[in-house]
Amino acid sequence: MNTFGERFRLTTFGESHGKAIGGVIDGFPAGIEIDEEFVQQELNRRKPGQSSITTSRDEADKVDFLSGIYEGKSTGTPIAFSVWNTNQHSSDYDEMKNIYRPSHADYTYTLKYGIRDYRGGGRSSARETIARVVGGAIAKLYLRQCGITVQAYTSQAGPVKLEKDYHELDFSLTEESLVRCPDPEVSERMVALIKQVKEEGDTIGGVVSCVISGCPVGLGEPVFGKLHAELAKAMLSINAAKGFDYGMGFDGVSRRGSEMNDIYYSDEEGIHTRTNNSGGIQGGISDGEDIFFRVAFKPIPTLLREQETVNENGDSLLLKAKGRHDPCVLPRAVPIVESMSAMVILDALLLNRCVRE
Amino acid sequence: MNTFGERFRLTTFGESHGKAIGGVIDGFPAGIEIDEEFVQQELNRRKPGQSSITTSRDEADKVDFLSGIYEGKSTGTPIAFSVWNTNQHSSDYDEMKNIYRPSHADYTYTLKYGIRDYRGGGRSSARETIARVVGGAIAKLYLRQCGITVQAYTSQAGPVKLEKDYHELDFSLTEESLVRCPDPEVSERMVALIKQVKEEGDTIGGVVSCVISGCPVGLGEPVFGKLHAELAKAMLSINAAKGFDYGMGFDGVSRRGSEMNDIYYSDEEGIHTRTNNSGGIQGGISDGEDIFFRVAFKPIPTLLREQETVNENGDSLLLKAKGRHDPCVLPRAVPIVESMSAMVILDALLLNRCVRE
Amino acid sequence: MNTFGERFRLTTFGESHGKAIGGVIDGFPAGIEIDEEFVQQELNRRKPGQSSITTSRDEADKVDFLSGIYEGKSTGTPIAFSVWNTNQHSSDYDEMKNIYRPSHADYTYTLKYGIRDYRGGGRSSARETIARVVGGAIAKLYLRQCGITVQAYTSQAGPVKLEKDYHELDFSLTEESLVRCPDPEVSERMVALIKQVKEEGDTIGGVVSCVISGCPVGLGEPVFGKLHAELAKAMLSINAAKGFDYGMGFDGVSRRGSEMNDIYYSDEEGIHTRTNNSGGIQGGISDGEDIFFRVAFKPIPTLLREQETVNENGDSLLLKAKGRHDPCVLPRAVPIVESMSAMVILDALLLNRCVRE
Amino acid sequence: MNTFGERFRLTTFGESHGKAIGGVIDGFPAGIEIDEEFVQQELNRRKPGQSSITTSRDEADKVDFLSGIYEGKSTGTPIAFSVWNTNQHSSDYDEMKNIYRPSHADYTYTLKYGIRDYRGGGRSSARETIARVVGGAIAKLYLRQCGITVQAYTSQAGPVKLEKDYHELDFSLTEESLVRCPDPEVSERMVALIKQVKEEGDTIGGVVSCVISGCPVGLGEPVFGKLHAELAKAMLSINAAKGFDYGMGFDGVSRRGSEMNDIYYSDEEGIHTRTNNSGGIQGGISDGEDIFFRVAFKPIPTLLREQETVNENGDSLLLKAKGRHDPCVLPRAVPIVESMSAMVILDALLLNRCVRE
Repeated sequence: MNTFGERFRLTTFGESHGKAIGGVIDGFPAGIEIDEEFVQQELNRRKPGQSSITTSRDEADKVDFLSGIYEGKSTGTPIAFSVWNTNQHSSDYDEMKNIYRPSHADYTYTLKYGIRDYRGGGRSSARETIARVVGGAIAKLYLRQCGITVQAYTSQAGPVKLEKDYHELDFSLTEESLVRCPDPEVSERMVALIKQVKEEGDTIGGVVSCVISGCPVGLGEPVFGKLHAELAKAMLSINAAKGFDYGMGFDGVSRRGSEMNDIYYSDEEGIHTRTNNSGGIQGGISDGEDIFFRVAFKPIPTLLREQETVNENGDSLLLKAKGRHDPCVLPRAVPIVESMSAMVILDALLLNRCVRE
Repeated sequence: MNTFGERFRLTTFGESHGKAIGGVIDGFPAGIEIDEEFVQQELNRRKPGQSSITTSRDEADKVDFLSGIYEGKSTGTPIAFSVWNTNQHSSDYDEMKNIYRPSHADYTYTLKYGIRDYRGGGRSSARETIARVVGGAIAKLYLRQCGITVQAYTSQAGPVKLEKDYHELDFSLTEESLVRCPDPEVSERMVALIKQVKEEGDTIGGVVSCVISGCPVGLGEPVFGKLHAELAKAMLSINAAKGFDYGMGFDGVSRRGSEMNDIYYSDEEGIHTRTNNSGGIQGGISDGEDIFFRVAFKPIPTLLREQETVNENGDSLLLKAKGRHDPCVLPRAVPIVESMSAMVILDALLLNRCVRE
Repeated sequence: MNTFGERFRLTTFGESHGKAIGGVIDGFPAGIEIDEEFVQQELNRRKPGQSSITTSRDEADKVDFLSGIYEGKSTGTPIAFSVWNTNQHSSDYDEMKNIYRPSHADYTYTLKYGIRDYRGGGRSSARETIARVVGGAIAKLYLRQCGITVQAYTSQAGPVKLEKDYHELDFSLTEESLVRCPDPEVSERMVALIKQVKEEGDTIGGVVSCVISGCPVGLGEPVFGKLHAELAKAMLSINAAKGFDYGMGFDGVSRRGSEMNDIYYSDEEGIHTRTNNSGGIQGGISDGEDIFFRVAFKPIPTLLREQETVNENGDSLLLKAKGRHDPCVLPRAVPIVESMSAMVILDALLLNRCVRE
Repeated sequence: MNTFGERFRLTTFGESHGKAIGGVIDGFPAGIEIDEEFVQQELNRRKPGQSSITTSRDEADKVDFLSGIYEGKSTGTPIAFSVWNTNQHSSDYDEMKNIYRPSHADYTYTLKYGIRDYRGGGRSSARETIARVVGGAIAKLYLRQCGITVQAYTSQAGPVKLEKDYHELDFSLTEESLVRCPDPEVSERMVALIKQVKEEGDTIGGVVSCVISGCPVGLGEPVFGKLHAELAKAMLSINAAKGFDYGMGFDGVSRRGSEMNDIYYSDEEGIHTRTNNSGGIQGGISDGEDIFFRVAFKPIPTLLREQETVNENGDSLLLKAKGRHDPCVLPRAVPIVESMSAMVILDALLLNRCVRE
């Protein structure tokens, strides 16, 4: 279904070339100041046309709040919002009406529902993530009151990897990088790669890493609602995501327990771990250390070069995308990863209010 | 919370050293023959003491069905079951009452709930997965009527990798391998590694891969309930799981779109893709090809050697596990991965009955 | 929360004097023709100003669909809609900003949330039911394909009762009655009473009865999701509703089992009951007979005469409503009762697709 | 489905003549002392054979807790419990295997699921309410810490009504009455009626009233989760329940707004209402006054006299119940109404922890 979360819930709607993309936020606590400018800024981080390495589509993507805010504050009632679709070139898609684009959702939606709004990918378009960014921005407004920060960044573009540990990075540089990689030198190489791929009419994948700091101990619901399980679901629900790991993740499988265990120690501030190979979560519950994880994204399947495919009748044909498309999800995926993270953490905070006497 | 699934739901209960581990299955369709022997066999695949590379604890783990079955068939009402705890050595844990074991859930449960059943890890023990295997076995009974198979196997133990593609494997060999790796030569190397690690009082991680065949096109609920997002959540909810990817996953990020796209073609049987880099899912919905994914597991944190840690007062101390413990989750994780997969797929099948006129 | 239903879900938003009232319908089956004119007609049945016995507020209440419909058909994706608030006289409420109106939600919302949009009752306004009527109209489009009809009518206004059984009524007359009572003579007496009450600056309660015909056997989910339990929740969630009963309801408590039992018989068409004291539901599951129930509504608490009350500081004061208000919920409650019923039945139909092999 | 509640959840299982009736309680706060004796006492209030006006079946109905309790306290993990079926006379039902008992669920379950455990009514038996009473008793343990009391009593048996307002009653007398009516004189008349009905092989209906005192202002979730809507659903989910109203309920429809409105006043303790016609709930949210409501129960359909009916083939036949049956639900329905109420209130308390900053 189109609802995410348990206590803090986001229900989204809208197709790429329909009237609007929007959503309804339910369960947001009352009395929080809603900084609409901040929400718009977050949306701007996601929007197309922000740089030479994103699509040149110029979508205004202005958020319009319809309810739930009174005199600048949340009232505890649903916060509905809409972003009107204004710059859609539906005719770009006319000839694709009956065509199944490779590695897109055209074929599966058609067989699932028997009907499909093909224009711009319809509901399966990444424009749907607009609603997630608004939801995430609202969630961030709450988290920052609690001193919780969520910072995502590009850690790999194609084969170009940022090898540094996140402690060595200066996150204030993330937004200065076209690809949202906070290491200027690596960022440059990533941008060069993406430009080259774009020139070739091709696309490339990447990895977004995310660090959540300031979480109290205790977030996450055993046994099926483990905090990292919720984060995994949230991340994999983003378009083009193909993998998730947290802490040492896939790299940790080759290690010994004696290398991986995070040893506790205590000081005047309380109990901590000397290392954080676990990624801030033990047994599905936050342990107060930084939470960190990675999300793998595949190369965008829309290519500005010819590809073989079939139409609804099974006839073979050659397809070449028209329109304006991203060569890589990376810079725009960063705010989406943050948004989904913020919503997961806020939901966990609310759920955690109920577990003790 | 302790419930998994939407239409097909499993609610689990029980602590490691309490009276029982069990669960309630709700939403299982009526009229399906319940092969209790098969369920017990599945449970035997999970149980400790099955070989020289698992713990020597000999838990009977007999499933006892309490409701929902009449004259050998499901009735559509809840199927409750219990596995009685009989061979628990709670005294092994007495001295750990106030100690936080490194990279275990002792600390986080205590801070979350203010109280903890420390015996055998309590609710955070992997014994909880007993209920998942029973749930998964019941789900498999339905899937096999639909021609859907779920096959997991160990594809990596520590640094020892099975490099072959799953098409080259003979899954009938999986159960003959102590580590549940269907390639005898690689299996042997894995077993040797695990034995060595065990002798050193250490533990090691690994990867379980899983292939689901025979799924119809259409499973998965956009946009937050994408099939791979549900699989990710299910897998990450398993104890010690640290990562998930599907299709080309993390390896696909370095590739170009032109290499990764799965090209459609049609023949008399319908529309198919020439490759399956997508792992059988497009836009969150199954496309009829095999679904495959990987799950990363960390080394088990319980070590038969001394480790530093603290107790509830923050006092430093040295801890060495008593009792009988696994050096590696791998052989026993395989049926759990299958079980969680089977439940996700059955739930998706039921949800998919509602989407069209 | 602000979501209703399980498989067919309506999430609503909006305050009385905010930008819009609207909702998101999720889980509506794909491929159904969306007759927007019918939806608007249903909304017109709910809207104010329709007659001399309703409020004279003239709200346009035009529904605007934002998503989920393509070429006139549902696509299986969320159907979002908005009804823009255009004729709100917020200044009517200025002096009530800090006042708790008797038997309204002002006091309870303020204490629950610590903040309240007081204008027109905010979220607790009956304008919120606009979204329910749109949701119900969409549900009806599906039900009519299945031959299921939902017909509500006023069966009591104050002490004026319609004593006839529903079989004796001609439902085609319901819409011709100002109070939506299909018996012209009783209707006339009801209208006379309501006019008199209005002149006195007072208000009056009433009962809406509802008949659902054409349901297949099998709707309803034991044990907590009994069909009548879901109907009860749906009805009691309507503003001003105070009671619900079905079949013989409260009147049946004085009877003997031997009088009340519905005796089965069979003919060529199948198995039926000779009487229907049970109201079409046995053990929480529809039995194929007509489902019928009653909903009690209290008199509207907004009076055009002085009442004592307090403000937020606890100061006593006298309050007299300004603005345009209904003297009785009855004529406008009828389409709302139908709408909630239609959504419950559609949800039950979808859930029932999952229970058998 | 077989789960009730949102944050505090009860999942129940079991058939009348299966191995056990039981349930899993999830979301109960950690750290609460579990008084098992109290739970058993509550169960004893529900059990058959307690007096000359209930069935003479002597079911032990001992509750056995399986998890979630450690050193006498709740741990925040699921509390599973089982009540073993020991005194079932399944052979009493042998000849009813293919027969549809009038006004029972036999016919509807069979058509819904295609299969039915006919013994003792299977899942549709009122024995299922055992699990509700255990869940309710656990909930009461929490509520009494908060000073919230839930008191139900029989207010009508057949035509014999208790006309007094609840303020005039002495609830300490409820348990001394065979029919759980706290007015000794009315109780006597009720008991006489029930005995007479029983002698005639017939059954009779009744009304249970319930008063919840001590609730804070703020319980209930607008707009679909209004507190009285949740209570209505809970009550109507009880076997044989046919109606629900709260506050003035159905009797209030004939009144004027000017008579019904509850006027606010303030004193040093805060804001209160002079009357409580609203039944302690305004706009779906508790207002701090007593919550009170009524539940209508039909006469039990099992008669110790001959009735006409049909079997699965549609053949006519005469049926006369064997076995031991209640002539009236009333005395045993009282603890069930309290239990469902307690669970609704606890859930509302937990949900209400999330609504404000």
